[in-house]
Amino acid sequence: MNDGSAYGRKPQHPNRHLTDVGPGTPCGELLRRYWHPIAESRNVKDLPLRVRVLGEDLVLFRDRAGNAGLLYPRCMHRGTTLYYGRVEERGIRCCYHGWLFDVEGRCLEQPCEPDGGRHRDSVRQPWYPVEERYGLVFAYLGPPAKKPVLPRYDNLENIGADEEYWTTVGGFGSTGDASLAVAPYSWLHMNDNVMDPFHVHVLHSTLSGIQFHEQFALLPKVDFFYADHGVCYSAVRQLGDGQEVDRVSSWLMPNIMSVPDIQMRPGQSLGIAWSVPVDDSHFVMGMVMKVPRGAARFELRLSGKTWGEMTEEEHQRIPGDYEAQAGQGPISLHSEEHLGTSDRGIMMQRRLIEKQIELVAQGGDPVGAFFDPEAALVRIRSGNFYRGTRSP
Amino acid sequence: MNDGSAYGRKPQHPNRHLTDVGPGTPCGELLRRYWHPIAESRNVKDLPLRVRVLGEDLVLFRDRAGNAGLLYPRCMHRGTTLYYGRVEERGIRCCYHGWLFDVEGRCLEQPCEPDGGRHRDSVRQPWYPVEERYGLVFAYLGPPAKKPVLPRYDNLENIGADEEYWTTVGGFGSTGDASLAVAPYSWLHMNDNVMDPFHVHVLHSTLSGIQFHEQFALLPKVDFFYADHGVCYSAVRQLGDGQEVDRVSSWLMPNIMSVPDIQMRPGQSLGIAWSVPVDDSHFVMGMVMKVPRGAARFELRLSGKTWGEMTEEEHQRIPGDYEAQAGQGPISLHSEEHLGTSDRGIMMQRRLIEKQIELVAQGGDPVGAFFDPEAALVRIRSGNFYRGTRSP
Amino acid sequence: MNDGSAYGRKPQHPNRHLTDVGPGTPCGELLRRYWHPIAESRNVKDLPLRVRVLGEDLVLFRDRAGNAGLLYPRCMHRGTTLYYGRVEERGIRCCYHGWLFDVEGRCLEQPCEPDGGRHRDSVRQPWYPVEERYGLVFAYLGPPAKKPVLPRYDNLENIGADEEYWTTVGGFGSTGDASLAVAPYSWLHMNDNVMDPFHVHVLHSTLSGIQFHEQFALLPKVDFFYADHGVCYSAVRQLGDGQEVDRVSSWLMPNIMSVPDIQMRPGQSLGIAWSVPVDDSHFVMGMVMKVPRGAARFELRLSGKTWGEMTEEEHQRIPGDYEAQAGQGPISLHSEEHLGTSDRGIMMQRRLIEKQIELVAQGGDPVGAFFDPEAALVRIRSGNFYRGTRSP
Repeated sequence: MNDGSAYGRKPQHPNRHLTDVGPGTPCGELLRRYWHPIAESRNVKDLPLRVRVLGEDLVLFRDRAGNAGLLYPRCMHRGTTLYYGRVEERGIRCCYHGWLFDVEGRCLEQPCEPDGGRHRDSVRQPWYPVEERYGLVFAYLGPPAKKPVLPRYDNLENIGADEEYWTTVGGFGSTGDASLAVAPYSWLHMNDNVMDPFHVHVLHSTLSGIQFHEQFALLPKVDFFYADHGVCYSAVRQLGDGQEVDRVSSWLMPNIMSVPDIQMRPGQSLGIAWSVPVDDSHFVMGMVMKVPRGAARFELRLSGKTWGEMTEEEHQRIPGDYEAQAGQGPISLHSEEHLGTSDRGIMMQRRLIEKQIELVAQGGDPVGAFFDPEAALVRIRSGNFYRGTRSP
Repeated sequence: MNDGSAYGRKPQHPNRHLTDVGPGTPCGELLRRYWHPIAESRNVKDLPLRVRVLGEDLVLFRDRAGNAGLLYPRCMHRGTTLYYGRVEERGIRCCYHGWLFDVEGRCLEQPCEPDGGRHRDSVRQPWYPVEERYGLVFAYLGPPAKKPVLPRYDNLENIGADEEYWTTVGGFGSTGDASLAVAPYSWLHMNDNVMDPFHVHVLHSTLSGIQFHEQFALLPKVDFFYADHGVCYSAVRQLGDGQEVDRVSSWLMPNIMSVPDIQMRPGQSLGIAWSVPVDDSHFVMGMVMKVPRGAARFELRLSGKTWGEMTEEEHQRIPGDYEAQAGQGPISLHSEEHLGTSDRGIMMQRRLIEKQIELVAQGGDPVGAFFDPEAALVRIRSGNFYRGTRSP
Repeated sequence: MNDGSAYGRKPQHPNRHLTDVGPGTPCGELLRRYWHPIAESRNVKDLPLRVRVLGEDLVLFRDRAGNAGLLYPRCMHRGTTLYYGRVEERGIRCCYHGWLFDVEGRCLEQPCEPDGGRHRDSVRQPWYPVEERYGLVFAYLGPPAKKPVLPRYDNLENIGADEEYWTTVGGFGSTGDASLAVAPYSWLHMNDNVMDPFHVHVLHSTLSGIQFHEQFALLPKVDFFYADHGVCYSAVRQLGDGQEVDRVSSWLMPNIMSVPDIQMRPGQSLGIAWSVPVDDSHFVMGMVMKVPRGAARFELRLSGKTWGEMTEEEHQRIPGDYEAQAGQGPISLHSEEHLGTSDRGIMMQRRLIEKQIELVAQGGDPVGAFFDPEAALVRIRSGNFYRGTRSP
């Protein structure tokens, strides 16, 4: 008598191989081979910030000479967090006994020790390199000898005098507003969302009304393909009168996406986003878009409200990306998934990640980690490309 | 030198055999052989409800055709919770990719798959059967082949035109008001409270003032006895002038109680309550009473306040059932109990439960699980029965 | 390529030998050989208090005859907490079934049992001895046969008619105000703070402005020495014009400190404080000072605000003891410390504690545990001692 009863279900589990991000985990070591945005440059000032990324707690600050620094937070002397440290010209000074560290962890002063600390050079405060570009602070948490070049993206380069970068690091990518500093679920849920053009049809168009653009209500003809160091899809929709639009979206190793304009404006996508793991069950979206200077910032509204303003019933009746992804739990149970034809993009992504995990485990360098500055300019294929003409 | 010092106490532990309610645990499997109320019918509408029962998270809804459905919440496709699903005529549709499930877990549509999902019949969304009666939704979480008939109770049948069912599912049973949706301690604490006529004398009458009725201040002559598929007590109090009252209270396997009117009105008890485990350390009371239509609902007040209005000091100075039971901790440490003569009812209850656990483990059917609809009418012995006459 | 990268750090850990305080742990057993203040006498009344100390949950009350009692909270009958018990002339009565216990755990009544409980003398509610002195309630949680005399301190004795004891038990010692009932980190962080005269120079004077007294901005000449049953330091500062001040501070086994007046008033310290572990990662400071009757109570203010009034940014910009100590985490990771010359006092303290742990483990009595009432008068060396004269 198997009637599909929920009685006696077997225990299910996440694919930890893909969801664990801490030091020494397979995917954690893969992710550590790339640069990740951890903050907006404009927020990094003389007041230290707590940053949690890839399961590691760190402290981020900018010394008074202008250099951003990312340090292990516990002062190597007696463990007090540098979050309460004082930022100075040359670095950050622990509040407890005044040890002064520069942005690369060198101990410059130990004021309570004889002669200012005779052994202060023998150890260093653990640190990670950071670089700034496009208004974001990027960090590299991997082995020093494997540090790649911070890539450039062709759609973000050559910013005009009348343009600026619009940046955000936080929960914005899943909620569409600033309600959440951190999204409380696995980075993989967001990563799975990118090469999934079909949810756009259901979640964003049919089920919750038109969230983005009426075109999304049309079921597209979708083609997935490996490209560059990632996966793309081309979703072609017939608009009638001989016109069609090819919406190309890209995902790049290991957690990078470039989604075309959601209002279906034509041309190349002008944004890049990263699904940055905070830890196994939290992430932030780091995003940057090239926009006209002073343009009003997009904030998603469903039934006239931002995500943070909606009631619990409204979240149930008009779900969006957050509900769909957080609804998979803190970490989804992948063993009970039933993937179908429409999930081909996700399968391709996961396969590519798995392959790179193996490669890294064997000592190799994963795709998308560039060591030649010349090669580190990434071409973004994403965009809304209209073809054909409407009859007049 | 043994002066009773608290120094060097041995570690103590709950009787997990009776408190664990999850799948595969001895008591969990016993409890799964019975129907349990999980919600009031009037609250089950087109907005899905989260239900946690016996350690399992589920989603409860009513399709637009009127059928209540209880499903495993994670959509079998990619795991998004059906709590954010849309209720339709034929079932509930996942918000993410639109898979539609009926109340028995059949997948009716997969709109993003070719041909609407060629393999959609090969699996089912895990589900449990529900039935509605007396204004409550009952669920059966056990093996399909062992599903018993949902019993009827003689004191709730034959409702008159001028009567109605008063129902509640939540913390009401322990607090007397609607402050708590869930009581934060083991179902066994409440279960132990029923065949314990002596706490009525102390907790509800002497220590905290007269909470229910002045008669409870009289220490009764108590007789415990096994009856039907449970335990009863008869508590006889001499009222003077040759009159006596026999207060009969019942507990039925595995978590059912029928307590007589606490204002000592004469006659059969008109209510039934279930101590339904949410998980090992939480429970809800499901309650139904047959009352005159439009009767004012009882809400306990101590020193003029409902439980939720009392200050911490008032909870300490005027404790009630909640304080006595929550005060045993999330799960009591049964190994350190010192049961006495007055605890005989509890010992009888536990013995009966243990015996049925063993029976179920050996493949048998426990008492109180009926398979013949004719036999499934339970006689309720509970009531306040007055005898003799007061001299005029 | 070792550039001090934070990549590949080895896991670090606390010195559990010193931080664990529960029953049966090495340091927990050492701490159990001493009396600890657990409450202010004036707060112990007929309303039971929850007390957590050395990882044990207890209930503290004062019977109506005036005796303080400290009992294991779960009633030995059926486990309901005595926090909801009723305090009476002879003890505390459990709310559930009325068992009455005296302050030494004897069961005096069992009102629901035949004959008031024929076996009520066969067991006792677990209890610990308490004594009151200097306005504080002290408890002894160790083996009864090893119970020492509650010591007296010479600086607190012989209180004058115009003097009184100012007492507090809570987070005050780390915050300087009443914001926190319990400080959320290991007792050892506070204990490490005492024989650390150098942090006074940095944290309290240079980095956050002058918190206590301008003299602290002068780096002193420090001498550490073992004295009595603890460690002392003498910190000599040259005030100019031939005058110097010798600030002597004391720490006594296992968690006792006497810090001289922080406004640098001359003479012996008039206070004693205890860093009392609540559990492994929480503590309270018990403090008593002999002060002029009616004197205004000191409350630390930084930039005009009490600790509880400060914003997060102010806590970062003007850190004090709380930030320095809580900043070490719930329990510091001692394996990554880099102790220097200035940490000699801490090393001496830890060495003394370790030695006493070993002694206790071998069945001996640790220093500072007195068994002869005559010997149990402790001389306090702490104070601000001025020498030499300023030229006129």
